Amino acid sequence: MSAMYTPSTLSSKETWRLLALVGAGLAILNTTFQGDGAPLIASIAICGIVFAVAFSLIRWLGAVFLKAGLKGKDMAKPSRPEIPETMGAVCAVVYLMSLIMFIPFAFYKDIVAATSGGGNRDVVIESQHIENGRFLHRFPHGKLASYLSGLLSLQSVVILGIGDDLFDIRWRHKVLIPAFSAIPMLIVYFVDFGVTQVVVPVPLQPYLGDVVDLGWLYYMYMAAVAIFCPNAINMLAGINGIEVAQSLVIAIQLLFNDALYLAPMTPYPHPATDSHLLSIYFLLPFIGVSAALLCHNWYPSKVFVGDTYCYFAGMVFAVVGILGHFSKTLLLLFIPQIFNFLYSTPQLFKLIPCPRHRLPKFSPSTGLLDASVTEWTNPPSPLIDTALRLLHTLRLVRITKDESGRITESSNLTILNLWLVWMGPMREDQLAWHMVAVQTVCGMLGLFVRHRLALLVFHHDNREFGFIA
Amino acid sequence: MSAMYTPSTLSSKETWRLLALVGAGLAILNTTFQGDGAPLIASIAICGIVFAVAFSLIRWLGAVFLKAGLKGKDMAKPSRPEIPETMGAVCAVVYLMSLIMFIPFAFYKDIVAATSGGGNRDVVIESQHIENGRFLHRFPHGKLASYLSGLLSLQSVVILGIGDDLFDIRWRHKVLIPAFSAIPMLIVYFVDFGVTQVVVPVPLQPYLGDVVDLGWLYYMYMAAVAIFCPNAINMLAGINGIEVAQSLVIAIQLLFNDALYLAPMTPYPHPATDSHLLSIYFLLPFIGVSAALLCHNWYPSKVFVGDTYCYFAGMVFAVVGILGHFSKTLLLLFIPQIFNFLYSTPQLFKLIPCPRHRLPKFSPSTGLLDASVTEWTNPPSPLIDTALRLLHTLRLVRITKDESGRITESSNLTILNLWLVWMGPMREDQLAWHMVAVQTVCGMLGLFVRHRLALLVFHHDNREFGFIA
Repeated sequence: MSAMYTPSTLSSKETWRLLALVGAGLAILNTTFQGDGAPLIASIAICGIVFAVAFSLIRWLGAVFLKAGLKGKDMAKPSRPEIPETMGAVCAVVYLMSLIMFIPFAFYKDIVAATSGGGNRDVVIESQHIENGRFLHRFPHGKLASYLSGLLSLQSVVILGIGDDLFDIRWRHKVLIPAFSAIPMLIVYFVDFGVTQVVVPVPLQPYLGDVVDLGWLYYMYMAAVAIFCPNAINMLAGINGIEVAQSLVIAIQLLFNDALYLAPMTPYPHPATDSHLLSIYFLLPFIGVSAALLCHNWYPSKVFVGDTYCYFAGMVFAVVGILGHFSKTLLLLFIPQIFNFLYSTPQLFKLIPCPRHRLPKFSPSTGLLDASVTEWTNPPSPLIDTALRLLHTLRLVRITKDESGRITESSNLTILNLWLVWMGPMREDQLAWHMVAVQTVCGMLGLFVRHRLALLVFHHDNREFGFIA
Repeated sequence: MSAMYTPSTLSSKETWRLLALVGAGLAILNTTFQGDGAPLIASIAICGIVFAVAFSLIRWLGAVFLKAGLKGKDMAKPSRPEIPETMGAVCAVVYLMSLIMFIPFAFYKDIVAATSGGGNRDVVIESQHIENGRFLHRFPHGKLASYLSGLLSLQSVVILGIGDDLFDIRWRHKVLIPAFSAIPMLIVYFVDFGVTQVVVPVPLQPYLGDVVDLGWLYYMYMAAVAIFCPNAINMLAGINGIEVAQSLVIAIQLLFNDALYLAPMTPYPHPATDSHLLSIYFLLPFIGVSAALLCHNWYPSKVFVGDTYCYFAGMVFAVVGILGHFSKTLLLLFIPQIFNFLYSTPQLFKLIPCPRHRLPKFSPSTGLLDASVTEWTNPPSPLIDTALRLLHTLRLVRITKDESGRITESSNLTILNLWLVWMGPMREDQLAWHMVAVQTVCGMLGLFVRHRLALLVFHHDNREFGFIA
């Protein structure tokens, strides 16, 4: 039965296409070994290779996951099929492996001559061959610890995410999973880097000076970003493909923003170039594995992604935002998620009853999704009652009243349900497409604000000048 | 039923003892913040804290693991109870978290003053306060990447080990799990360190010179060590407590060897001190979590450790051996495992039939373990037949013959079965104790060879002099 939904082999057409992709990727990788190396080209090639690897592994491992009990019911289909769950873990492992393999491309030193006493002492003869202004896309060697700390945080979130998927941890515990996972990155930031100053917006400079040192507050802020991103992705979930699609949109917009800091757009050397290269190197393979996952997870889903994927995707964004020093820009790409979180708070803090699942409700008769509801078995308190009626008038919630005018149901407070309240019932894939559009438009708006309107409160966009004279 | 075997709460006596241990550990940690810091003391305190944390978590999570289906039957007990499996993953997570939290203790710079343009540029004012010969146990900052790469390899082995425990991967695939996990460490070694020279033994120096550069062969050697250690621990398994007990013995002997390179025994500064400190910092918390696991895993086991633990433990040894540059010494502590592997090869390569499980056989009537056997449904080929009869005469295998003198059974080729052939049937915990004794004696012999007999083929023990003049 379940095998019907999860073919476990590639068709011969798929096999040939994926092999061609891998072959092309390897050929490109091979050319990057010649001359000075070209990490950016290598990263693009790796993006294609990991797509093929992740696509194949997800197909092959579906039956194995089902057999091991990692499966879930798709409630928004008439037959409620059981399909493999936690497939995000496969993506994450392929992704992590690719980032590890990428280390020599990004960090290889030109010449290292070393002698060693059984390895105990090493004399490194530094390369005399100074890279005079060439655009190598290669990192200064000191960034290796940052890169590794990002990997450690991602691996941690994968381990804890798998634990969550296996044991179904309570939400007040699972909120903290990203916090634990962020620790490696923050600790290495602390011992290796320790920059906690931020530039003060112009209107506040008379009071605070040009730059203010936030000290440990800055660590709290970074931890908050790392907790927010994974949980925000996890919260905007519930229909086929939505977790992966929103992550892909965010990743592509981040990539676009990073590209603005590269050579033709921004003169090299520029102080922000390295940070944005780091971001690109983390994002390209992420886009590869996510696209592969989306092929299997888009409506009608053949696999579920699991909380592992949501945490992993959110952590990729947190890592690039924090290590790339553009966490404020990052948050501008999370507008739908931030809205979804704020809109959810009355239910999260139990002002309004919160059922375990708030995903849109599937109607087998129409085949469409509509907003799911909370039933008010006890009538709401006068304050909540008034608030709900006001929000109903503003079309921010839909309430149902009985003949006496008492509220019996209110729609669940998620952006998906709100959209269905606004637009009326629609098919699952239609809703997913709408959300992709919302995410894209909000993100473009966010980037416009970042690069144009920020000039109103800062002296200049950091893309054009060194940020500090 | 299963709840009988896995109480899921701590008794009040246990609670108080563990709280006292954690309290003492935290108090010691707190004192290390004063003055120059004392990473070695901090590491010892952390060893106690992780013992308490791992001990409690294993107790608390037993029921959760059973519910999630992570369980196994203990075949060497009359009632064959089902107990939680994969508890090594809990240990590993606690261990990894502790090593991450330890980073500031090991690497914290005295003074870092940095200014930043939105974090894009940082000017580090180097500490003028040079550590003139004081014995700080603190690492040069450049070792951070090595430390992080070790952590990455350990996290990788945990992720893949959990996959193995969940999906029950075939052994010809699982042998490669440590190989994949070793990649981060080897790649960082490649970009960061790149030392591939080894000292040539005196008798060979006329032909090869004092030092020979092995180049990529050295990477093959390191990969082989990383593949061998985890699989060797995994292969010497099958009775209660054996995996953890052998790992603890090896870890303690490594710690003893490391201690030989510290201040009172070896004058500081010595080129090998840093490497052995790194090893100590990785081993102390490992001893903490392993001791906690052994409390639950020793006969009669309340939990199983899972392949995850074996891979994890072996990888800890591989990491300290490779990053600490004493992988040859490391192998001297693996004598029983090396014997077990070589002794197993006829079965691994199918010269002799290999049943899926080769653990000693439990006799419900006597309550004792005896050597398990392979049944020869088809008689062995003349060559194998002769070999088996010869080995039987040498008491290296036990064969059973039918009335016509044809071999019908031969004991399985593992060190545990061989010991039972030699010593006769014994109780499970007795066999485990015997193995602990074997491991201890062989290890002490190995260390003696290392520090005394090595002088016969090398100019001097590296403990006494810088290894290279």
